[in-house]
Amino acid sequence: MCRWLAYSGSPIQLETFLLEPRYSLIDQSLRARMGAQTTTGDGFGLGWYDEYREPALYCSIVPAWNDRNLHELAAHVRSGLFLAHIRASTGSPIQQTNCHPFRHDNWLWMHNGQIRGFNAIKRELTLAVDPDLFAAIEGSTDSELMFYLALSLGLTDDPVSAVERMAGLVEYTAGGHGIENPLQMSLATTNGEQLWVFRYSSEQPSPSLFFSTHVRTLQALYPDNPRLAGVSEQARLIVSEPLSDLPGVWNEIPEATCGIVLAGQAELWPFRPRS
Amino acid sequence: MCRWLAYSGSPIQLETFLLEPRYSLIDQSLRARMGAQTTTGDGFGLGWYDEYREPALYCSIVPAWNDRNLHELAAHVRSGLFLAHIRASTGSPIQQTNCHPFRHDNWLWMHNGQIRGFNAIKRELTLAVDPDLFAAIEGSTDSELMFYLALSLGLTDDPVSAVERMAGLVEYTAGGHGIENPLQMSLATTNGEQLWVFRYSSEQPSPSLFFSTHVRTLQALYPDNPRLAGVSEQARLIVSEPLSDLPGVWNEIPEATCGIVLAGQAELWPFRPRS
Amino acid sequence: MCRWLAYSGSPIQLETFLLEPRYSLIDQSLRARMGAQTTTGDGFGLGWYDEYREPALYCSIVPAWNDRNLHELAAHVRSGLFLAHIRASTGSPIQQTNCHPFRHDNWLWMHNGQIRGFNAIKRELTLAVDPDLFAAIEGSTDSELMFYLALSLGLTDDPVSAVERMAGLVEYTAGGHGIENPLQMSLATTNGEQLWVFRYSSEQPSPSLFFSTHVRTLQALYPDNPRLAGVSEQARLIVSEPLSDLPGVWNEIPEATCGIVLAGQAELWPFRPRS
Amino acid sequence: MCRWLAYSGSPIQLETFLLEPRYSLIDQSLRARMGAQTTTGDGFGLGWYDEYREPALYCSIVPAWNDRNLHELAAHVRSGLFLAHIRASTGSPIQQTNCHPFRHDNWLWMHNGQIRGFNAIKRELTLAVDPDLFAAIEGSTDSELMFYLALSLGLTDDPVSAVERMAGLVEYTAGGHGIENPLQMSLATTNGEQLWVFRYSSEQPSPSLFFSTHVRTLQALYPDNPRLAGVSEQARLIVSEPLSDLPGVWNEIPEATCGIVLAGQAELWPFRPRS
Repeated sequence: MCRWLAYSGSPIQLETFLLEPRYSLIDQSLRARMGAQTTTGDGFGLGWYDEYREPALYCSIVPAWNDRNLHELAAHVRSGLFLAHIRASTGSPIQQTNCHPFRHDNWLWMHNGQIRGFNAIKRELTLAVDPDLFAAIEGSTDSELMFYLALSLGLTDDPVSAVERMAGLVEYTAGGHGIENPLQMSLATTNGEQLWVFRYSSEQPSPSLFFSTHVRTLQALYPDNPRLAGVSEQARLIVSEPLSDLPGVWNEIPEATCGIVLAGQAELWPFRPRS
Repeated sequence: MCRWLAYSGSPIQLETFLLEPRYSLIDQSLRARMGAQTTTGDGFGLGWYDEYREPALYCSIVPAWNDRNLHELAAHVRSGLFLAHIRASTGSPIQQTNCHPFRHDNWLWMHNGQIRGFNAIKRELTLAVDPDLFAAIEGSTDSELMFYLALSLGLTDDPVSAVERMAGLVEYTAGGHGIENPLQMSLATTNGEQLWVFRYSSEQPSPSLFFSTHVRTLQALYPDNPRLAGVSEQARLIVSEPLSDLPGVWNEIPEATCGIVLAGQAELWPFRPRS
Repeated sequence: MCRWLAYSGSPIQLETFLLEPRYSLIDQSLRARMGAQTTTGDGFGLGWYDEYREPALYCSIVPAWNDRNLHELAAHVRSGLFLAHIRASTGSPIQQTNCHPFRHDNWLWMHNGQIRGFNAIKRELTLAVDPDLFAAIEGSTDSELMFYLALSLGLTDDPVSAVERMAGLVEYTAGGHGIENPLQMSLATTNGEQLWVFRYSSEQPSPSLFFSTHVRTLQALYPDNPRLAGVSEQARLIVSEPLSDLPGVWNEIPEATCGIVLAGQAELWPFRPRS
Repeated sequence: MCRWLAYSGSPIQLETFLLEPRYSLIDQSLRARMGAQTTTGDGFGLGWYDEYREPALYCSIVPAWNDRNLHELAAHVRSGLFLAHIRASTGSPIQQTNCHPFRHDNWLWMHNGQIRGFNAIKRELTLAVDPDLFAAIEGSTDSELMFYLALSLGLTDDPVSAVERMAGLVEYTAGGHGIENPLQMSLATTNGEQLWVFRYSSEQPSPSLFFSTHVRTLQALYPDNPRLAGVSEQARLIVSEPLSDLPGVWNEIPEATCGIVLAGQAELWPFRPRS
């Protein structure tokens, strides 16, 4: 099980939610309490937006807790919109091109979950990618292929619809190969302004997904961190698993739901794959 | 320009031709005298046969001259049939899954050269791979795709014919996209018993390819190396560039030629792509 | 907490005890059931003896379970004497020169445990290293420094005495700085013929250490592994933590004990630091 | 021969001088025209100052030209004071802790050159490091040891004097061991506000060192780069080798000279080791 985190709000040092000794993504990955795998040391990725249109990426196949460069970056880089992902491979190689988030132009994409029976339908799904995008696929994961399918199906114009069609295509293709309940996903995608998150699986329960509640509960989570004191009211943290057990901090996103975050406002909509 | 070396003969420590301070593949790559690129530090790979049917692989994205593990291995492992490759990327990512030699079952494959305009025809070539082999492609290079095309076209049954058909398919597909002179290759493939090497390009001159002449000239190349004293008469070294300038050591393989090495005997045949 | 394994017996493929999906060192490190740290992904090392006097080393800072080269090597290399170590750093950097086992000439050394207050006494201990050996220290760990102290104190002539004096020196030096109970160790060292293991700590309990009992119980641990069927009666496995919970397979080595393994015979002696 | 670059001026994207396809540090290292080694792929390091007192570091042992993270960082990070270094090892291991620049508190240090006969005097020099600083030494290079010697001799109070005393100590110690002409150095150090550079060797010629002349000549070097158009008059680039052959861009710093850069003003002083 991968783990991920997305932040949208006033600019903050990346380490705040990534590296705090308690209640951070990397602390969590070391403990790996809730996932199916016993550890999550199969690659790390970070994507952040700054003054440029195209986000920056940092990927590493050294475990995040050992990666000095990551600690340096996280302490020095600030961003108002960033995604971080810790990978637990379900089979594909441990290499930078398989690390999330994936980037295309100004878009980022990251995923927790899998396509069951992926090897059996990989070719058919690959053929469904827009020929003009085909050569841009760099890695070998199901997650990156889902991104390129969504891009081929209109992600940049209508993200929710494109993800619904991508999910529909995966389920339809798998069905043709006799694969039941193929899709499991909690995913996030963003164009640098708006953030879309999705929780869905062909067969429930889906991989978990949580929103932070009010920014004051976040601040209470890190009482010793002065950086959080100045965070705007609109700050939002969305995580695949809660960073703490504290009550009141996290709202679980329901099954089969899409969340849209813009300027700190989050809307939830039902999510349904379609063809 | 990549560089490679294939050895067939009585078992010898790998370091003999890989790491000698003069006249070895890695020494050569540090100097990089003849290639188009100014260095070749984009990954290293080694495949060797021993008592098992499937060969062993060692790949690294650290430059070969700095890789301690490679030095250890090369000093301790002996083999009577091994391939070594130093990569100079023509664009695809530096990662282990892009390092040569590539392996499928008991076969190895390595390549120097390129498919021009690869991104434009990658999708069409990928579709030509046998669907049952599709999911086994791990990397993103033209070289690995050439291997899977050859496998799809019968490499394990008739290697020369399969490589001719692969080359024909690449030229035909490129032609359909208006790409002229798409193929450049010096390549080697083996099933652990026999070794096939090819020198060809759509437009000459092709990447170079050389056979060692008699084993006594090899021994003369390394007069201080006792290991070579005991090497069998059948020992053959095939290299993309000569490891030395000494006269009499190397025979250049002509343009558009296939060489077949079995039990120290080498036969040369004309090579012609076909559909 | 690091984990390690030493094997002495008839030559066997390294993967047998390293990579079996159940009951192997790497499987164990993924689960990390008994140690203080939550994972052990801070570097891996392997040292093995073959026909040469000096053993071969393989070290990696990629987690062992992800390291393809390690899987290849372990499947192809056989040895009758090898050490393997999975590191959990207690602070020093994750780099190859900090991976165990450490090598000097034909000797190997690996350690689980630590010197408490190491930074405070590192300089004084470093000064106690034989000046002729000083420049050979490559990394920055307490473990490697313990090795060079033992070498300086006569390891190659009288290993037990040298380790006792090393332990005495560490305790004496720490005492001078007011550091209580400084030493914790389960360690192994070998010259390629004989194997010495030690369990000791200034304050008990010490890091654990276990011998395999009769080879038939080892064979029973891997009933489906034909390689073990042919293992000699003298085969011995020594591990920092048991690879299984099965009763009868492992004998715990008592506190403050040195074990000497030669030709399958193991003798246990009391261990006492001395000045 | 290592290569390095130091920039002081109005904040600019790091890639400007690091990664431009012509006339940049990494382009230069690929070509490696002037150095003794044939390539410089033994590690890369980058240190930059921003709003925090302690500079950020990025180090990598993948060759700089292949390092995707470096390209990302260099495109997104701006700084008004940064150091970059490409290493060509003279023997010590390729690992992050041996990459320059080295950092201590708010200070950075990088070096091109070597101490001849280093292994023979490493112990004696190590003993001369302030015991309170001893445990902070992380790597095994002569360059880092020179930094800790300079720190022990007052670098933070009087940098020029401390470097003169460090050089004197190295020469004195080497002399005691019969090593002639031990020191070769072009080095840079900074506290985040002021920048000191040194060119010296016991036996001339010393490793080279160049200042950019007026900022307009720099701008002329990159006529297509709009970033340089806005650079302040005070911008200064100091390099171990010129990034171009263009006349008028570079002033060579004389033998045995120290340069002090503050707010774009550079002063040159004679440098003389002293005890």
